[in-house]
Amino acid sequence: MQTADARRAFASDNNAGVHPAVLAAIADANAGHVAGYGDDPYTERATAAIRRLVGDDAQVFFAFNGTGANVIALAAALRPHQAVICPQFAHLNVDEGGAFERFAGAKLIDVPVHHGKLTPDDVERQMHGIGDPHHVQPAAISISQSTEVGTVYAISELGALGDVARKHGLLFHVDGARIANAAAALGGDLRAMLVETGVDVFTFGGTKNGLLFGEAVVFTRPHPAAALLPFVRKQGMQLASKMRFVAAQFEALLADGLWLENAAHANRMARRLAAHLARIRGVRLAYSVDANGVFVQVPRAAIAPLQVSRRFYVWDDEASVVRWMCSFDTTEDDVDDFAAAIDREVRPLSR
Amino acid sequence: MQTADARRAFASDNNAGVHPAVLAAIADANAGHVAGYGDDPYTERATAAIRRLVGDDAQVFFAFNGTGANVIALAAALRPHQAVICPQFAHLNVDEGGAFERFAGAKLIDVPVHHGKLTPDDVERQMHGIGDPHHVQPAAISISQSTEVGTVYAISELGALGDVARKHGLLFHVDGARIANAAAALGGDLRAMLVETGVDVFTFGGTKNGLLFGEAVVFTRPHPAAALLPFVRKQGMQLASKMRFVAAQFEALLADGLWLENAAHANRMARRLAAHLARIRGVRLAYSVDANGVFVQVPRAAIAPLQVSRRFYVWDDEASVVRWMCSFDTTEDDVDDFAAAIDREVRPLSR
Amino acid sequence: MQTADARRAFASDNNAGVHPAVLAAIADANAGHVAGYGDDPYTERATAAIRRLVGDDAQVFFAFNGTGANVIALAAALRPHQAVICPQFAHLNVDEGGAFERFAGAKLIDVPVHHGKLTPDDVERQMHGIGDPHHVQPAAISISQSTEVGTVYAISELGALGDVARKHGLLFHVDGARIANAAAALGGDLRAMLVETGVDVFTFGGTKNGLLFGEAVVFTRPHPAAALLPFVRKQGMQLASKMRFVAAQFEALLADGLWLENAAHANRMARRLAAHLARIRGVRLAYSVDANGVFVQVPRAAIAPLQVSRRFYVWDDEASVVRWMCSFDTTEDDVDDFAAAIDREVRPLSR
Amino acid sequence: MQTADARRAFASDNNAGVHPAVLAAIADANAGHVAGYGDDPYTERATAAIRRLVGDDAQVFFAFNGTGANVIALAAALRPHQAVICPQFAHLNVDEGGAFERFAGAKLIDVPVHHGKLTPDDVERQMHGIGDPHHVQPAAISISQSTEVGTVYAISELGALGDVARKHGLLFHVDGARIANAAAALGGDLRAMLVETGVDVFTFGGTKNGLLFGEAVVFTRPHPAAALLPFVRKQGMQLASKMRFVAAQFEALLADGLWLENAAHANRMARRLAAHLARIRGVRLAYSVDANGVFVQVPRAAIAPLQVSRRFYVWDDEASVVRWMCSFDTTEDDVDDFAAAIDREVRPLSR
Repeated sequence: MQTADARRAFASDNNAGVHPAVLAAIADANAGHVAGYGDDPYTERATAAIRRLVGDDAQVFFAFNGTGANVIALAAALRPHQAVICPQFAHLNVDEGGAFERFAGAKLIDVPVHHGKLTPDDVERQMHGIGDPHHVQPAAISISQSTEVGTVYAISELGALGDVARKHGLLFHVDGARIANAAAALGGDLRAMLVETGVDVFTFGGTKNGLLFGEAVVFTRPHPAAALLPFVRKQGMQLASKMRFVAAQFEALLADGLWLENAAHANRMARRLAAHLARIRGVRLAYSVDANGVFVQVPRAAIAPLQVSRRFYVWDDEASVVRWMCSFDTTEDDVDDFAAAIDREVRPLSR
Repeated sequence: MQTADARRAFASDNNAGVHPAVLAAIADANAGHVAGYGDDPYTERATAAIRRLVGDDAQVFFAFNGTGANVIALAAALRPHQAVICPQFAHLNVDEGGAFERFAGAKLIDVPVHHGKLTPDDVERQMHGIGDPHHVQPAAISISQSTEVGTVYAISELGALGDVARKHGLLFHVDGARIANAAAALGGDLRAMLVETGVDVFTFGGTKNGLLFGEAVVFTRPHPAAALLPFVRKQGMQLASKMRFVAAQFEALLADGLWLENAAHANRMARRLAAHLARIRGVRLAYSVDANGVFVQVPRAAIAPLQVSRRFYVWDDEASVVRWMCSFDTTEDDVDDFAAAIDREVRPLSR
Repeated sequence: MQTADARRAFASDNNAGVHPAVLAAIADANAGHVAGYGDDPYTERATAAIRRLVGDDAQVFFAFNGTGANVIALAAALRPHQAVICPQFAHLNVDEGGAFERFAGAKLIDVPVHHGKLTPDDVERQMHGIGDPHHVQPAAISISQSTEVGTVYAISELGALGDVARKHGLLFHVDGARIANAAAALGGDLRAMLVETGVDVFTFGGTKNGLLFGEAVVFTRPHPAAALLPFVRKQGMQLASKMRFVAAQFEALLADGLWLENAAHANRMARRLAAHLARIRGVRLAYSVDANGVFVQVPRAAIAPLQVSRRFYVWDDEASVVRWMCSFDTTEDDVDDFAAAIDREVRPLSR
Repeated sequence: MQTADARRAFASDNNAGVHPAVLAAIADANAGHVAGYGDDPYTERATAAIRRLVGDDAQVFFAFNGTGANVIALAAALRPHQAVICPQFAHLNVDEGGAFERFAGAKLIDVPVHHGKLTPDDVERQMHGIGDPHHVQPAAISISQSTEVGTVYAISELGALGDVARKHGLLFHVDGARIANAAAALGGDLRAMLVETGVDVFTFGGTKNGLLFGEAVVFTRPHPAAALLPFVRKQGMQLASKMRFVAAQFEALLADGLWLENAAHANRMARRLAAHLARIRGVRLAYSVDANGVFVQVPRAAIAPLQVSRRFYVWDDEASVVRWMCSFDTTEDDVDDFAAAIDREVRPLSR
């Protein structure tokens, strides 16, 4: 077992704990009996809060975790002979233990991408074999916003994907494990980012933005799959009995813009780290720092020494690229201290 | 939406909130960063706490909810051409939205039972077609302890099932959503109840016994399926990233016997309710009150009026049997008031 | 390995070989190259032949075997959170090795029945939990015509099932592994039996009626699932590349009424056997002999001796009921000889 | 519907009919009753014939088609959290309609390859994330011999893959839809090609080598998955009831080396076509002609005119590469005529 280190590290935004306001909301919700499975006023209010951000047509379904939320959203929309086009490094494709394939019984068509972003051309290239039973039928595109490499699709890039999705009748799905970080990077307007660009369904990530646990599947507008979601969520083992405690967390997160504030802070810390790195010879950003992740090529010999004091992951062993994530509770001191440590390790190696 | 009623009702033990000690443990665990997915000291300590109750060989895996815990435990042990023998009213069979069939791809052989309990004879009657590819191959038995109708298998009944399971090489699985209530009813010794009787794997229910959420899959001894469980849990969308908060809850529940205390209290309240009912003409216990559930045949006309003030479920519409569940926070006053209300509604109907 | 016995036995209609006219059609079709997967004139003509019997709206898809045909038909129509109501002894439920559960990921709700036949009341009793995500959602009924115990649903019984299916929006599926035997019993009009009664999709069995192999999935009218069938058939591993040879067999079977002639002959032989049995003391028909199967309660001690010379299956070990199937090539002599053998074995036992 | 053209075309080896000796064997097997599902002397003899080629330890299971044979072989060996490493253009990956993902519930890790061939380095590059539940666990490699682009792995290449498979405990699976063509190319010794190189299981293709239908799953040695295959085959809807007719075809194919003779002839015709092409300016072989497929870059404008008289498929639209397949019944005249037609179309375009 890895030694638990209560110090804030840069391993993952899910290594952080719970935002105090969210914890307080859980305690406040802990009064008396409430009907299970979402038939309660907390869920009603949390749903309304998401609708205020996304639109009155939004259909909202809370779930346990990101893997579950993504898989049930797609499984509700797809039949097993259909397929989802996604970037090769999509979390859905490489980090969910095959959950999608097993539960949906369908195929992911993963394509190589630059900057972690799928393009309309990538989609067009997969639109062959339509109507041919030997070929799985593309029925959806799935992207992550922000992406797994810390980049953020511009509104115009999303709109172009929305156009190609509509052109081919594809569901447009967004894995929003870090949707708040993307929103913070793009001005905070979820409607502009997700509704006007043509996204059909996204997951609204809570866990990586200060919740104890909890994500939401959000259909931006009425969709046949939304009507199936309650059944697929239960069958997908993602229906919490004490749902009020998921909903109460979301209420707290969405009240007074805490979701954006948390995310903006994490993004700021990432940029601060990147600014430090710009002054350290021998390290190089592997991707643009658009959100709360900093992907950096570092001298291989520096990695292990740095990991001694702070957990983080090697992203690409071959290219010697590491991933440093900031979270809502990362402090300026955390960043400055870490940057100094990096400098100490890297400087002697890069002369 | 059902009006949420903060008053403690008798609808389900999952309508209760979180035990204060458990909530405090969550708050205590909310310090600094901790590695995700269970690689943390909270998970280590909670695992150790379960091992102290079950034995050093126990393999422990925390999960989000009961449906998930049951399904991943069985799916890890089974191949899809195999089958699970279970009582017709098993939660697994009728209350999990088809989660087992979809995720495991296998069949449940559900058999009619008395008192909610599977017997060795029920199992023997299904042991045909062995080796015949046209017939699904029985590979496990699954029971619930306590059962869905509030009864509790005696140690000797469990032992007899363990014997028939061993005889035929079947995995012996126990759905322990209410394992604490059964343990409280049988003296509190999990080893005697689950290990010495031959149970291979059980779920240790937390949600219905005072947790916010959280269950554990526990293999009582080394088993090939235990080695697969981490993979099946992830693929089954049941792996919490902020695992420390599941583990910390279990730590609190298991410390100082809170798990047994909570359960014993709920059981006591159920018996108190049953004692009241014994004095009300026109109602009749449908099942023995062994744990925290009270199943009662009541005059049909009394049901709706009673539901006005306190949520509960009709268990068997045809037989006019209702289900009243007690939980860790049910008070003597709750019970006495409810019994009085029942009396008021039923008395005029049963003259 | 069981000793192969070229003598015509009573084990199963699939123990028979290929009708000479069907074999000749295969040979005739063996000329030059033909496009694969059904894009050929043989498939076009065989489809037209089925349409002549069922109606111009019929959608026809050939498949390898009965298990495959049933499973892909239902899987195309269902989502995994839905369920199929079927008789407990449905081939789909007990004789297809769990194929339905694995491929469709859905649940079969099997109900105890009399005479092998599902009734509207059986269906009504399962129409609960609608809209409740904890409960699988009934979406289809599946019956076998003729049934697994040799009985045949009357037109009026089918119509009543069609009514209840329409009332609840359920797909009405008929496993027609022996549809020809039922048709022969009911006058030979497939439209009256299957279209006017409200059947949505049936399988047209060929293998048990003189084909080498081959079944057809037939939607009686336009249905959304029919549009998916080509994809589900391929994904279900039921798409023959040299499809012309399946189609050519069906052409031969359907030309000049051979399908009805074969089935009527088999039925006649079953009735002849039943007539013999009526004169043998100590045996008793377990089910009405409506088609080509004869289910008989015989003295237990007679079973093994009879099996020495002719393979057949014990249907219900506990009740000492055996199954004797007649096929298109069963002769009057076969029947008379077998009846004599039965008489010889049973008579001494039943004094 | 494509006009059926009885003329031998170059579209696919499955557009050919049945070899006369195979058809005769079917007719010969059509005598009397025989037990179903493989419990018959034909199956016993066909199994023995395959064992004579592969070794006494070989476990043989007949199936309907190639998709089915591949999928059940892999599904028997894999759990859903595991994965299969295969070339990007594997039939399993792109031409089976998602059958593998749906039935096995697992992931294919498809990698870009040259010449259609997987290399040990390709495998090594995927051996990461072992033991990490977020990552599907590589458990098998799957290659096609001959490949989908008409190349043939040399014995040494197979041996190197066998070594890497053994090193990492991976099942080595060979899709042998055209195994005979590869065998013919490599000298005809199946043991040298498949057993001594470390292959664990392969499919022995019959349909593309002169059978009406029929493939075999062959484990080269005792393997735990072989014991499960009968169940997985039934559940996979690949168990023929009138099995004798599959087996009888294989008997005929394997007797007197017909399988090798058919394949060698098809290979010879492919080489003859390639030799013609070498003399036509403006066309270029896209892959080495090792077996019975000829992949050729042709001027785009020539494709449609050539397809008027003979069906064939465009393999790579972007690169203007077409696929011409030869079969057991392709004649020298067919090839010469076609080459002349190609010459007529291409010559004017390539000046």
